[in-house]
Amino acid sequence: MNLERAAKRLGINLQRLQSLQETIIKTSSWPEPRLLRFEKEASGVEAGTVIFESGEVVFGYPKIRRAMMLAPALEKHFPDTLAVEEKMNGHNVRITSVDGEVIALTRGGFVCPYSSEVARKILPEGIFDADPDLVLCGEMVGPENPYVPKSIYPTDTIDFYLFDLACKNSKKTLGVHKTHQFADEHRVKSTALLGEFHKDRAAEKIKRTIKQLGRRGREGVVIKDPENKVPALKYTSSEANCNDLAFAFRYYNDYALDFFISRAVREGFQSVEWLETPDERKARALRLGESILMPLVETIEKKQAGENIVQKVQIRVRSLQTAREFEFHLRRSGIRAIFGSPEPIDDGYLIRISKLIMSTNDKTQALLEGEMW
Amino acid sequence: MNLERAAKRLGINLQRLQSLQETIIKTSSWPEPRLLRFEKEASGVEAGTVIFESGEVVFGYPKIRRAMMLAPALEKHFPDTLAVEEKMNGHNVRITSVDGEVIALTRGGFVCPYSSEVARKILPEGIFDADPDLVLCGEMVGPENPYVPKSIYPTDTIDFYLFDLACKNSKKTLGVHKTHQFADEHRVKSTALLGEFHKDRAAEKIKRTIKQLGRRGREGVVIKDPENKVPALKYTSSEANCNDLAFAFRYYNDYALDFFISRAVREGFQSVEWLETPDERKARALRLGESILMPLVETIEKKQAGENIVQKVQIRVRSLQTAREFEFHLRRSGIRAIFGSPEPIDDGYLIRISKLIMSTNDKTQALLEGEMW
Repeated sequence: MNLERAAKRLGINLQRLQSLQETIIKTSSWPEPRLLRFEKEASGVEAGTVIFESGEVVFGYPKIRRAMMLAPALEKHFPDTLAVEEKMNGHNVRITSVDGEVIALTRGGFVCPYSSEVARKILPEGIFDADPDLVLCGEMVGPENPYVPKSIYPTDTIDFYLFDLACKNSKKTLGVHKTHQFADEHRVKSTALLGEFHKDRAAEKIKRTIKQLGRRGREGVVIKDPENKVPALKYTSSEANCNDLAFAFRYYNDYALDFFISRAVREGFQSVEWLETPDERKARALRLGESILMPLVETIEKKQAGENIVQKVQIRVRSLQTAREFEFHLRRSGIRAIFGSPEPIDDGYLIRISKLIMSTNDKTQALLEGEMW
Repeated sequence: MNLERAAKRLGINLQRLQSLQETIIKTSSWPEPRLLRFEKEASGVEAGTVIFESGEVVFGYPKIRRAMMLAPALEKHFPDTLAVEEKMNGHNVRITSVDGEVIALTRGGFVCPYSSEVARKILPEGIFDADPDLVLCGEMVGPENPYVPKSIYPTDTIDFYLFDLACKNSKKTLGVHKTHQFADEHRVKSTALLGEFHKDRAAEKIKRTIKQLGRRGREGVVIKDPENKVPALKYTSSEANCNDLAFAFRYYNDYALDFFISRAVREGFQSVEWLETPDERKARALRLGESILMPLVETIEKKQAGENIVQKVQIRVRSLQTAREFEFHLRRSGIRAIFGSPEPIDDGYLIRISKLIMSTNDKTQALLEGEMW
C-alpha cells in the first residue's frame, strides 16, 4: 500500500494518516481490489473516501445539506444563478476503474458486488478508456435496488443516473455542465436538469417543480451552482418526506427514531413558506398522519396474522458468484437477510431476498402478547 | 445524617449506601429539610427516594408501566379483578411531614417550594397528626401548575388529587381502598375511581371509558389490583397522546425526540386493537398529523413574526419568598425562566413566568434566515 503517495493526495501528513489507521480508517480486502476506507470524516477528508493499493484516492462524495426555508436559503447560499436537477431516490455510488476493472463504491467506501455488476452491464464498454482516472458519481434506482426499491422510475430492474463527475486524487467534482455533456457524448443517463434560474426567481420555480415531482412520487431536487463555486443544496417534496416516514414506521423499532423528527419538521417549514390555506394544511396533516399510522397498523396486523416482519427485495444477477458476494456484503453491513433459491431467467438469475427486521418483529410480537412498552 | 438507620430501611448495606453517595445519591440542602436523593434507581431502590437527616426514608413512587395492547396486557398482568382510576395530567408529588412541617417532594426527590406551599394551603390542618409517617402520593393539576399547565380540571388555580398512600420507611403503598377511604375521611380530593371489573371484561369497559375521557381532553387511566398484589398499569387516550405530540412539536428542537416515537406507536396499537373502520382510522391519522404539523406551523409563524418561543405559565403564592425559592428550584432543574413582577392579589401574589425554549427558538430563527438543517 503506497501510503506516502496517498497522504500527499489527501493533503494530510503520513504520520497522521498512519495514526488514523487504527480508528477511522478500515481495511476492506474483499471483494477485490483491496482498499482502505475512511469510516468517518477526519482531517477534512470526507467519510467514504478510499485509498487503493497503488496509493490512488477516490474521495467520498460530499454530503449535500438541506434547505428548510427555501427562499432565504437560496438567497444566502448562492452567489448568482443556480441549476436545478432532480434528486433521485436510490443509493449513491461512485463508479471507477481500477486496473481495468469497473467497480462501484458505496457511500461508505465498500465495493458493492451487485452494484459493480450492474455498472458493468449498464455502462458502455470502454467508457474509462480515454481517462482511467474518471469517477462517475450517480444514483442506482429502480425496483431491483435492494437498498431502496422504488417503482417510480422508467425501469423494471435497476438503472444508473449520472449526477456528477470526479477524478481520482482530486476532491473537486466537475459540475453540472461537464457532467451532462459527458452523459450526452457517452450515451449514459443523467439526472434530469430541470432548469437554470437566477436565485431571486428560483424559489417560486422550485416550489412548482417540487409539487409536480411530489405528485409523481419523486423525491425532490438538488440545487447546484452551475460554476461549481459553492456546494449543492437539496430540497424534497412532502410526498417524499411522508414516504420516508411510512418506511420508518413500518419498521418502527428498527428505524423510526433516526428518521422521524427532521422529516416532520420539514413539513412545518414547507407549509409556512408556501403560505398554505387551512384546507391545504389539513390535507398535509392527513398525509403526514397517514404516513405514520397506516404502516404501523399494517405491521401490527401482519404480525397479528402470524406473518414475520420482513422487507422483500430482489436482485437480478448474471453470475451466482455475484449473489453470493452480495449476501456477504449485506452481512458485513449489518443487515440480516435470507436469500431465496436463484430462479433462472434469460440472462442469469433472479434472487428474492427477505431482509429481517428483527427488532420490530420481536417487539410487535411481545406487545401483542401483552408485554408492556 | 443517620446513614446506618437509613441503610437498614432501604434494605442495602451501609458500605453500599456510602459508595452510592459519590455517583447515584446527591445531597439537596435546600430548601429545608436537608436530604439525600437517589438520582437514579440503584440496588432495587427507586429513583427519587429520599433520606432525611434522621435516617427516615421516603421511597420513590414506583414507575407505572404502559399497556400497549390492552386486552392481552390485562390478561397477562392481573390475577383476577382490577380497579380503574383516572390518570391525571399534572406533576406527581409525595407530600409528607418532617419535623412538623409539610413538604412536597417531586418525582426526582427535590422539595418543590411552590408545591409545598400549595400542599399546606390545600390539605386540612393536622392531616399528619395521627400518623406523622404518612406519605400522600398524588397529582398536582390545573392551569397554575407551572410544570404541566392544564385547564381541563375543575380548578382555576391548582389542586391536589390523592392517588395512593405510603408510609415512611416502607416500600409498599396502601392501595386503592385504603386511599379512597382516607380521602373520604379527611375530605381530601382523590383521583376518580371509575369501576372495578373482572379482568376478562375490563378491556371493553376501559375502551369505552378511555374514549369518553379523550373527548373531555383527559389523559387516561391507571389500572390497579384492588388487593395491591401486582404493580399498576397505565393506558392513555388518543387525544392525550396527540396533546403530548403537540407539545413536543411546538418545541421541536427541545423536546420532540424524547416524546415522539412511543406516542405514535401507541396510536397504531390502539387502532388495531379497537378494530377501527377506515373512516375512524382516517380521523385518527388526521388528529395525529395535525398534532404534529399545526404546532410546528404556529412556532415557525410566531418566530417569523418576531416573537420569542417561550412557554408561559403562572403561579399564585402567599409569600414572595416562595416565588424566589421556586425560581431557584427551576434553575437547579435546568429550566431557564423569566419571572414577571409579582402582581398583588387577594391572598398573595400572581407571578407570570416565561420558560425559555432556547434551542427551538434559536434553531427556528436560524432556519428562517436560510440556515441549512
